[in-house]
Amino acid sequence: MNHLFNLHKPINQWPFHKVLVANRGEIAVRIIRACHQLGLQTVAIYSTADKDALHTKLADSAICIGPANAANSYLNINNIITAAQLTGADAIHPGYGFLSENADFARACEQNHLIFIGPNADAISLLGNKEQARETMKQAGMPLVKGSPTVLTDSKVALAEAKKIGFPIMIKASAGGGGKGMRVVDYPEQFESTFDLCQDEARSAFDDDHMYLEQYLTHPRHIEIQLIADKAGKVLAIGERDCTIQANHQKVMEEAPAVALDDATRQKMFSTCEQAVGKLHYEGVGTVEFLYNGPGAFYFMEMNTRIQVEHPITEQTTNLDLIDAQFRVAAGETLVDTRPTVSNFALECRITALTPGKITGLHLPGGLGVRVDTALYQGYTVPPNYDAMIAKLIVFGPNRPAVLNKMRNVIDETVISGISTNLELLAQLLAEPDLIAEKTDVNWLDQQLAQKEADTYDN
Amino acid sequence: MNHLFNLHKPINQWPFHKVLVANRGEIAVRIIRACHQLGLQTVAIYSTADKDALHTKLADSAICIGPANAANSYLNINNIITAAQLTGADAIHPGYGFLSENADFARACEQNHLIFIGPNADAISLLGNKEQARETMKQAGMPLVKGSPTVLTDSKVALAEAKKIGFPIMIKASAGGGGKGMRVVDYPEQFESTFDLCQDEARSAFDDDHMYLEQYLTHPRHIEIQLIADKAGKVLAIGERDCTIQANHQKVMEEAPAVALDDATRQKMFSTCEQAVGKLHYEGVGTVEFLYNGPGAFYFMEMNTRIQVEHPITEQTTNLDLIDAQFRVAAGETLVDTRPTVSNFALECRITALTPGKITGLHLPGGLGVRVDTALYQGYTVPPNYDAMIAKLIVFGPNRPAVLNKMRNVIDETVISGISTNLELLAQLLAEPDLIAEKTDVNWLDQQLAQKEADTYDN
Repeated sequence: MNHLFNLHKPINQWPFHKVLVANRGEIAVRIIRACHQLGLQTVAIYSTADKDALHTKLADSAICIGPANAANSYLNINNIITAAQLTGADAIHPGYGFLSENADFARACEQNHLIFIGPNADAISLLGNKEQARETMKQAGMPLVKGSPTVLTDSKVALAEAKKIGFPIMIKASAGGGGKGMRVVDYPEQFESTFDLCQDEARSAFDDDHMYLEQYLTHPRHIEIQLIADKAGKVLAIGERDCTIQANHQKVMEEAPAVALDDATRQKMFSTCEQAVGKLHYEGVGTVEFLYNGPGAFYFMEMNTRIQVEHPITEQTTNLDLIDAQFRVAAGETLVDTRPTVSNFALECRITALTPGKITGLHLPGGLGVRVDTALYQGYTVPPNYDAMIAKLIVFGPNRPAVLNKMRNVIDETVISGISTNLELLAQLLAEPDLIAEKTDVNWLDQQLAQKEADTYDN
Repeated sequence: MNHLFNLHKPINQWPFHKVLVANRGEIAVRIIRACHQLGLQTVAIYSTADKDALHTKLADSAICIGPANAANSYLNINNIITAAQLTGADAIHPGYGFLSENADFARACEQNHLIFIGPNADAISLLGNKEQARETMKQAGMPLVKGSPTVLTDSKVALAEAKKIGFPIMIKASAGGGGKGMRVVDYPEQFESTFDLCQDEARSAFDDDHMYLEQYLTHPRHIEIQLIADKAGKVLAIGERDCTIQANHQKVMEEAPAVALDDATRQKMFSTCEQAVGKLHYEGVGTVEFLYNGPGAFYFMEMNTRIQVEHPITEQTTNLDLIDAQFRVAAGETLVDTRPTVSNFALECRITALTPGKITGLHLPGGLGVRVDTALYQGYTVPPNYDAMIAKLIVFGPNRPAVLNKMRNVIDETVISGISTNLELLAQLLAEPDLIAEKTDVNWLDQQLAQKEADTYDN
């Protein structure tokens, strides 16, 4: 059985006892439940659009912080800090989205003596700046996708650079966009002529013949590492997730563990993350996102400094409670030395509302191996103002085929009436041979959807 | 990770492919889900009172087998066999209750070439007869509560018998009832005078002075062992459950593992069950119920030859699917040699309807560590005709205190409007210091309820 912490500090010795949950929807419900389990009091905040939302009913108290427009409510730092002060909250959990990765908000909490459940403002700020984050992580030993150090105009010089980076290689126009002046080259013999061609295209499209080179990933998967760090500076990798199934850069399904990973690469990713993040004075949970291109080939994209939407699949494969863990880190508990063992397989599907409206009928699945994280209830009206994700179906079992099968049955059983959802799309995807065989990459779903659209126009 | 079976037989080699589920309510839903997960077709049966029941909606087809009165529908063997024949089902899963331990039903299935998912009719018949079961199990090496071999009338002879059995001892009137002529004796010195007193009482109450003696259990707990047996005769113990919290012999809450058990006693109970049941040509799941009276002291009560209501807590602590396992045994798969490891702690609370009626509002809990097995949906009308148990809340986590705490929160969150339920009673019980400290025995809840009633009359 996995344990993350050395010794549990009694709750009466914690530096906070009343948590304002600065979020809405399923993650607010998730956090409120974790607080109650720990014995922490809870304050919900809500916009006028959310006065009947489930999170307001489950919290010990609830306070309105502004109108429906998120900028004036869930993103309004002053209103939220004031709400915490009015209700006597001494800590704030930001959830994901909204202000969860806003360094100003973390700083405002600090200045108002409110414990922000997350890393310090400097870490958020550093990792929120993509260029700075890449540079910092590179210094800390994290592998990045290779590229030419300067722009290039001469094909012979470029070929020499290309050989250093390795083939296949992507030639890109420095002023590029829309695929102009951009080509993949598989072999050195084809390089110079293709470079010249791209340069011609770039010149006529952008009036600019500066080019650059980037390592080309043939079928990259999105694999991310869940980390947790304590105040003493220890960082533990607690499992990876495969989030390759994305539409327009939005994750749609997530799996754990990543079956594409060989164990040597997994261990290398874990230790690389632990070492790099160990240099950052980081605390709390965090996720390092990588592109993965085969054994040993993983490349840092970015680090998220909050709890992720898809954290439940890590919970279901490690038997840990990551929201509980966030609070324990903030309370000063210290991490054990060993990474948790991973067993089972878990899959999450995100249910999104395609239209807002009232839920007139609701049957959510249950039973063995099924977890539903949602703030839906029958009679609830999904407002048009916020993120369309309304429920997470999480299924777990002994292996990937069994879990895919169970997810198909679970989706088949789910009824959400009154609004339109992506349930049918999810069911279709789960029947796709490519998805079943893991012959997918980060572009796969976009290609599928484009194909579907093309088919629709053809008919 | 636990596995029960050696090799999985491909489903197309199974001797059945379409299962009639001869039950209703949550267990019918549970079985239908397991069938779909395995790739088995499902037939639901329903009485006229159940035409809108959830199990009829989830099955591939549904057939009415009679009027609301269970004797004419769910207990009507002919109607159910006919339903199986009409729908082309080749197997029948009986669930629990109804015909699940009816040897005639199992025999009727056999005669009609329908595979009965459970042990053979002879085993059901043998173990269904309590006296015969006790005698058989005793022969097979199972410990029983000790008693005097014959009725007694002489106090000196009785004392000699009492010393053989051991103190404390219970003196009972052979014609007894209502506590008349019945007393516990702690020490030999008090025995003869108490025996005479009991005999006097018995004589005046029943005009019969024949007495008998029985070993007295001071604070017995109900602990039961989950077994599974394959067609090859192998029997595996796959964990125990503590079902001490009972009202009027009905289980109300069940826990796994049993924290009262020391590991030596646990292993002894496991091997005793495996050996005894190994002699019975038993197949499928089964449960041996014991009274437990402290380290090493466990006494056979009875063996149930069906899946139990409380099977989910074993599933949540072993990561196994027991309904799936029932089907695999019936399909001829063979068991592994080693007992599963048990981790986590799980608690089940049975929600019962105190009144029938329409569910006008329903919010069931969800999220991490929560499983709900139910056939409820908002708008469903709970009929008055059947068992009052309408949902099972199953909570699991790292240890008993955390799980009790989570169950309190989960019950607090649950909303079932339109009918009256036992949710409030469950909440009260979970706050009882005796229950929290495990200072309970099989009589505890009845005593609590009697006390509550007395308090009500006092006020």
